[in-house]
Amino acid sequence: MTLILTNEEIARLLPMPNCLARLEQTYLALGRREAANRPRSDIYAPSDEPTRRYIFKTMDAVLPFAGVAALRLNSDVILWEKSGAGVRKDKQPVAPGGKWVGLILLFSTRTGEPLAIMPDGVIQQLRVGATNGVAAKLMAPPDAAVYALLGAGEQAATQAAAMVAVRPLREIRVYSPTRERRERFAAAMSERLGLPVRAVASAEEAVRGADIVGAATNSIRPVLEAEWVAPHAHVSTIRTPEAPPPLLERCRLIVVHTRTWAPANYIVGRGEEPVYAHDPREALGDEHGTTADALESQSRFLSRQPDLGELAAGEVALPPPGSLTCFVNTMGLGVQFAALGALAHERALEQGIGREIPTDWLLETVHP
Amino acid sequence: MTLILTNEEIARLLPMPNCLARLEQTYLALGRREAANRPRSDIYAPSDEPTRRYIFKTMDAVLPFAGVAALRLNSDVILWEKSGAGVRKDKQPVAPGGKWVGLILLFSTRTGEPLAIMPDGVIQQLRVGATNGVAAKLMAPPDAAVYALLGAGEQAATQAAAMVAVRPLREIRVYSPTRERRERFAAAMSERLGLPVRAVASAEEAVRGADIVGAATNSIRPVLEAEWVAPHAHVSTIRTPEAPPPLLERCRLIVVHTRTWAPANYIVGRGEEPVYAHDPREALGDEHGTTADALESQSRFLSRQPDLGELAAGEVALPPPGSLTCFVNTMGLGVQFAALGALAHERALEQGIGREIPTDWLLETVHP
Repeated sequence: MTLILTNEEIARLLPMPNCLARLEQTYLALGRREAANRPRSDIYAPSDEPTRRYIFKTMDAVLPFAGVAALRLNSDVILWEKSGAGVRKDKQPVAPGGKWVGLILLFSTRTGEPLAIMPDGVIQQLRVGATNGVAAKLMAPPDAAVYALLGAGEQAATQAAAMVAVRPLREIRVYSPTRERRERFAAAMSERLGLPVRAVASAEEAVRGADIVGAATNSIRPVLEAEWVAPHAHVSTIRTPEAPPPLLERCRLIVVHTRTWAPANYIVGRGEEPVYAHDPREALGDEHGTTADALESQSRFLSRQPDLGELAAGEVALPPPGSLTCFVNTMGLGVQFAALGALAHERALEQGIGREIPTDWLLETVHP
Repeated sequence: MTLILTNEEIARLLPMPNCLARLEQTYLALGRREAANRPRSDIYAPSDEPTRRYIFKTMDAVLPFAGVAALRLNSDVILWEKSGAGVRKDKQPVAPGGKWVGLILLFSTRTGEPLAIMPDGVIQQLRVGATNGVAAKLMAPPDAAVYALLGAGEQAATQAAAMVAVRPLREIRVYSPTRERRERFAAAMSERLGLPVRAVASAEEAVRGADIVGAATNSIRPVLEAEWVAPHAHVSTIRTPEAPPPLLERCRLIVVHTRTWAPANYIVGRGEEPVYAHDPREALGDEHGTTADALESQSRFLSRQPDLGELAAGEVALPPPGSLTCFVNTMGLGVQFAALGALAHERALEQGIGREIPTDWLLETVHP
């Protein structure tokens, strides 16, 4: 039978420590070339209204130690409004029932058969948190006690859960521009993580003196200043623009998730209207010129750094203890979905969770 | 509801004339940049036995006029044996029940929702035949009466069905090296197509004087000689090596399916053992050197020719009537699966055919 899981089931099946262990093993495999990714591609097309775009995103991977291949796809209808301030993009939940469409398909490398189909939402957040967590486990000060967190959304929540699991944190200081939002986040996360999470009034107040500095925003500009960061800190970001160039220059070691810094874009249309997919420049509007150049230069710089697979496989020379380090989660990889999708599938089978459709519905007798 | 179809249902839902009409419209859209493809990628990995490989192949496309995005994937376990004569590769039906795994997933560009999941086997054959058929409709002599067909397998059968639908053929002459095989094919196709299909004893006998010359083999070498081909003929091949270079040199117009001549390959392993996916050179074994160079040179030459989208959109200058022309079906495209998958889905809905799973099982409330 082919298993179909829900996000709620996946959230119960994938505690953060298990995600971290599985992803650490996965990056080790990747560093040893015992896994492979086909990087993300995006096809941009019209939808049925002028203010909407349809975007079909896919990435895939094979992870032999888990015995799986995985495909992750997003079938997104996006609000797409241009103004002097840039392009406003927002995924529209216009599938029946006001829902979104993102799927992970899992296949066996032994028989080829489809093992499971699951939504991508929960794993999409868990894999970002767990990836930065694996990097922190390998790079951050072993006795890190104070964690500064910039951002108070779902990505910030999984970042915090991952950092708590890899370091003996005593305090988290969270900053987000909206007071109510950061205070609500702090209260919820104190409860959830069992340690003090304190909302602070500025990014600087959060960052100064922290052992780990995490950014989990959707900002298209740097969200902190280099001089705030303690010289021994580990900085962990989920987007290329979050870390300012002077901070990167000071780092003794920078590791990126992957050196690929943009998806392969395919566009329906004659290109009169350029589309920059997954490119923060598109949101810059009137600022486009200079900021875009700076970002491209930063992306090029990052694409010359070692990646997380190389770090996990011991191929990267570590700086002396107490050095400033940074991890930049540049772009997602299919292997993250292979790793956590396989883990969810294994645990669901053990626990008898999920719905089933006959695998035979998805097989064929005609030679393909 | 998300529709699940079988190959048997698809074969009934997709008569060749409908496939030809839908694909002609699709290549017109492609030529006008009103559709887009993400070219095929293959990930090569170990399976669970030394003589097997696991290969995960994907390609996708968005076809706005049909309101769909489509993904086609193959999850293949392949016998992989090396000898002095080359690599022997053969897809193993090792999924439960001795089956293969190839799927087409169809999504709505209006709502993003999954519309249908179907096996790829029948559409994989139909789209090759119909694509060469569209090319013949646009390039072959309008009064073509004699069709020479080299090959007697499933691909040959769909080629013949397509050619019969686009030209007023009076006779098909089929050659395949095994006498019994070509005679069985001739008998079956005479019955099926309602015109004389005659098995002949050599490729030369089939080709001399024919108005359309079709090759539908899996040969890694040319299957005909240039001097056999009538000066007014249209030559139609399904693989790059089938047409000999002297024949291509004589053509007044060569059109390729796509200028991309190889998939993007990603390989698990350190690359001590090079793998040429979808590359006829791998099968050459001891002949590798010279033949490989010739093939690469042919691929490069073909990648400078106009493509079928450009031809359908009227962007290609046609030679005078009576000129030798050639179509080379270089590599598949996702848009073929989007076009025929959408057609199968539309007709299945009209006719109430197929099984259903709740679309809601494949949607999510978590922002992806």
